[in-house]
Amino acid sequence: MIAVLQRTLHDEFPITRHLAVRVVHAQLERVSLTAPLAENRNHKGTAFAGSLNAVATLAGWSWLWLLLDSHQEVAQVVVQDSTIHYNRPVLTNFTALCEAPSMAAIVECLAAFRRSGRGRMRLAVEIADDHGVAVAFSGRFVAERTSGRPAGAS
Amino acid sequence: MIAVLQRTLHDEFPITRHLAVRVVHAQLERVSLTAPLAENRNHKGTAFAGSLNAVATLAGWSWLWLLLDSHQEVAQVVVQDSTIHYNRPVLTNFTALCEAPSMAAIVECLAAFRRSGRGRMRLAVEIADDHGVAVAFSGRFVAERTSGRPAGAS
Repeated sequence: MIAVLQRTLHDEFPITRHLAVRVVHAQLERVSLTAPLAENRNHKGTAFAGSLNAVATLAGWSWLWLLLDSHQEVAQVVVQDSTIHYNRPVLTNFTALCEAPSMAAIVECLAAFRRSGRGRMRLAVEIADDHGVAVAFSGRFVAERTSGRPAGAS
Repeated sequence: MIAVLQRTLHDEFPITRHLAVRVVHAQLERVSLTAPLAENRNHKGTAFAGSLNAVATLAGWSWLWLLLDSHQEVAQVVVQDSTIHYNRPVLTNFTALCEAPSMAAIVECLAAFRRSGRGRMRLAVEIADDHGVAVAFSGRFVAERTSGRPAGAS
């Protein structure tokens, strides 16, 4: 599944090749993506905020994509909104980790998707470098049946 | 000033070359940055959320950088936190616009920076494509004297 998700990210989001994002874990318990500092650094040698947000968004997107795939649901995933806190600079290569939300949230999202063709879920992502967690992200992601135009971006 | 800011963005954030970000306006009344859909598209042909967030963040960063530059202050600018709403997909080349906040906010930020070496400011950025505004961003940016490690990312 790591290779499938890796290929999916590169195909869906070509710029991830420039970010050099790599899938480390691709399970419903945890999705983690890693990216090198070198490709994502600013001139101060720390990670660019835009790269950190992009990798966090991709981690949440990937988790919901995996959930739908594991239930054989055909859908597109978009992000509707997100909030991010850059608590300190990221100084090394970094990893974005998205763990499963509550079972209640999963059941509700899948039920809404099957009923109406649209299911929403809030997902938390943490980014850590070699020194620990540095960035906290929370995003609202939407699974939509693949007809019509989604109310978000991906 | 457009050319100076353009060079600054490319130097400070090398990945902006891959995003193909270009400065359109570089005044305190308005900073606007544009980016092509082609370099930032997902497989559905709309703009990748990560690119939209990155360009919005750069617009806010640029506005505060311009403010400091216009007051001959030497500082680094970082973003501490941000929230973004992707209200609909971005379908064409797009522009991120940051307009000046209130004069009270500007005066307070500059006074705090001169007093303590650190001034904060919340900046709003809107992203529009050929069909109008599609994305709303709000970020808290910090100007810091260039010693020590800032509590944020840039």
